Amino acid sequence: MPTYHIEMMEGRTVEQKRKLVEEITRVSVEILGGSPESVDILITDVERENWATGGKLWLDRQ
Amino acid sequence: MPTYHIEMMEGRTVEQKRKLVEEITRVSVEILGGSPESVDILITDVERENWATGGKLWLDRQ
Amino acid sequence: MPTYHIEMMEGRTVEQKRKLVEEITRVSVEILGGSPESVDILITDVERENWATGGKLWLDRQ
Amino acid sequence: MPTYHIEMMEGRTVEQKRKLVEEITRVSVEILGGSPESVDILITDVERENWATGGKLWLDRQ
Amino acid sequence: MPTYHIEMMEGRTVEQKRKLVEEITRVSVEILGGSPESVDILITDVERENWATGGKLWLDRQ
Amino acid sequence: MPTYHIEMMEGRTVEQKRKLVEEITRVSVEILGGSPESVDILITDVERENWATGGKLWLDRQ
Repeated sequence: MPTYHIEMMEGRTVEQKRKLVEEITRVSVEILGGSPESVDILITDVERENWATGGKLWLDRQ
Repeated sequence: MPTYHIEMMEGRTVEQKRKLVEEITRVSVEILGGSPESVDILITDVERENWATGGKLWLDRQ
Repeated sequence: MPTYHIEMMEGRTVEQKRKLVEEITRVSVEILGGSPESVDILITDVERENWATGGKLWLDRQ
Repeated sequence: MPTYHIEMMEGRTVEQKRKLVEEITRVSVEILGGSPESVDILITDVERENWATGGKLWLDRQ
Repeated sequence: MPTYHIEMMEGRTVEQKRKLVEEITRVSVEILGGSPESVDILITDVERENWATGGKLWLDRQ
Repeated sequence: MPTYHIEMMEGRTVEQKRKLVEEITRVSVEILGGSPESVDILITDVERENWATGGKLWLDRQ
């Protein structure tokens, strides 16, 4: 039943996401208990024009 | 003033969304009170590569 | 699998929440399909000092 | 460390977002303290078929 | 209609929140347009045991 | 910069949270890259009267 929302900069591959959700589910079950089927993970790919740190869009950083 | 966020798997039609927001607003006003205009609903269409259950992306399930 | 997040002003009774999640689940299954067990609903009770509209906290809007 | 999530109707320009994150970061640091680098802002552009007020999608309003 | 969610470490005063929502609403209307009444802001006070950076809860940092 | 939000049923200990954020940060850096300091994790403890599955609050399940 734990629900994970992950916001990451756009550009990650499906293979990275596949690996990540597998590992997070494993870690979650190990530490919090429950069944793997009760773990939901939702990923948001954030565009560089939609994330800012220090008052600057990542589009404009470097 | 209640605000609803709905995350659903991509692929629903505008007609389904139209119906859903109408019904949820009706139910919300009936049970919580307030005016329909105070109910906000935001929908997120989630891609199958961005939702995992049981450690597996829905892209890879079945 | 649709997941609903509902933000509402604090002060609603458990009986109202009980009714609301029942109705939203019914409406969701009716319009989007899927089984009732696939519908998750999470409620957040928001304090009046933590919600603002028009630049004013609801604490100050009586 | 404060984290801002902003949901806005689609259609804003990068220039508006650039300005907005700059101003919000400035205001945040001024009032809450901390360094600008500790302020994260994430923007979501919401489509008109995914936002409803008063039981009606914005797609259908006016 | 823009909706702001602000997550901040617990401990801010109501006076700081009052000031913050006033300023953010002003800045939002200035840059994005719309009326002040269309701006909603929701604040979440996060406990130090519920926020981690660098793999460490803020409860344990310093 | 990936940001994780974890919603879990209330009742987990600080020790479980400490372990969880350490492991998730490790896994995140391993798979997505970046530095540990760029990983933020926010936890929400959800009360049983605020989470429903299958149209029933967890308060009322079993």
